[in-house]
Amino acid sequence: MVKVERLLVNFKTLEEFKRFKEYGNQELSMVEDLESNIIENDSESPFFGIYYGNALAARMSLYKVNAKYNFYFEPPRDYLELWKLEVLPDHRGKGYGRALVDFAKEMGLPIKTNPRINSHGFWEKMGFEKAKYNMERDLGENPLIWMPSGVSEQDPS
Amino acid sequence: MVKVERLLVNFKTLEEFKRFKEYGNQELSMVEDLESNIIENDSESPFFGIYYGNALAARMSLYKVNAKYNFYFEPPRDYLELWKLEVLPDHRGKGYGRALVDFAKEMGLPIKTNPRINSHGFWEKMGFEKAKYNMERDLGENPLIWMPSGVSEQDPS
Repeated sequence: MVKVERLLVNFKTLEEFKRFKEYGNQELSMVEDLESNIIENDSESPFFGIYYGNALAARMSLYKVNAKYNFYFEPPRDYLELWKLEVLPDHRGKGYGRALVDFAKEMGLPIKTNPRINSHGFWEKMGFEKAKYNMERDLGENPLIWMPSGVSEQDPS
Repeated sequence: MVKVERLLVNFKTLEEFKRFKEYGNQELSMVEDLESNIIENDSESPFFGIYYGNALAARMSLYKVNAKYNFYFEPPRDYLELWKLEVLPDHRGKGYGRALVDFAKEMGLPIKTNPRINSHGFWEKMGFEKAKYNMERDLGENPLIWMPSGVSEQDPS
C-alpha cells in the first residue's frame, strides 16, 4: 500500500528536492524563507510525496485555485492546479505517479496541469484530456484537465 | 544582418514548426483552425522567426498582456509575454537567440518569460533576472523578467 503524505518544509525535505528535475524558483524561495525564518521549520508545504523508507521517492505540488480565477471549468468552482509531478528514476514502474494523481482526484475537484513535454501518454492513462487551446489564456502552456462527474469544460473562445 | 520577421500562418510554417521541440497544443490548434477555415491562410501569427534561406531556423512567440493583468511590473502597464524561444540545433552560435530577444526588447515594454529548465545562463546574458517567486501567482513557473528603464518589479507578497 502506497502512502501519500503532505511534505513539511525543513532542510531535509529541501535537500531531497534537489534530486528532482523540476527544481526551480519555488524551491529556492522556500530555502530562503526557511533560512530567514519567514516560514517555520516543519510548516506545511504545497507538496505531497511518497517515501521509500526514509527517502523521498516521488512528489507533486497542489494548489487550490479560487473559483473566481477559474477559466477552465463549468460550473464555476474551485479547482486544483497540479504541477511538478515527478517520480525519481529508481522508483518508476511502482505506481507512484498514479498514486499521487489518485490522491489529488479524491479531493473531488477538477484538476488542471501543464505537463512537461513527452508525458502526455501518462496523463492520458490517468484520464486527463487536452483543454481547448486559447492563446490569450494559455500562452505557452499545454494544459491538460480532468473533471469529476458534474463538471464540464468552459468554452475558452 | 539577421532579419526577424513576423510569421504567417500557412501550411508551410506549421510544417516547419514540427521541427521545434516546444511543439504543442498551440500549434495543433493553429493547424485545426487553418484546416477548418477559422483562420485565413497567411494570417498573422503570434510567432516571430528568422529564416536561413527558405527554412525557418529560429522562432519565438510574443503576446502583449494588458496592464490590468500585470502582476509583475510597476508602474502598471502592458507587458510582453515571450515563450517558445528556440533556435534549431544546426543554427546555434549565430546570435539568432539574441536577435529575437533584442527584437522583443525594442518594443519598449517589460518582458516576462517562463524558460525551459537549463536555459538560465542564456537569459542572464540577455539581462533577464528571476522574478521574486510567489506561489499563488507563479505556481510551477520560474518566471524571468526584463525591464526597460523606468520600470521596476512589483512586490508579489
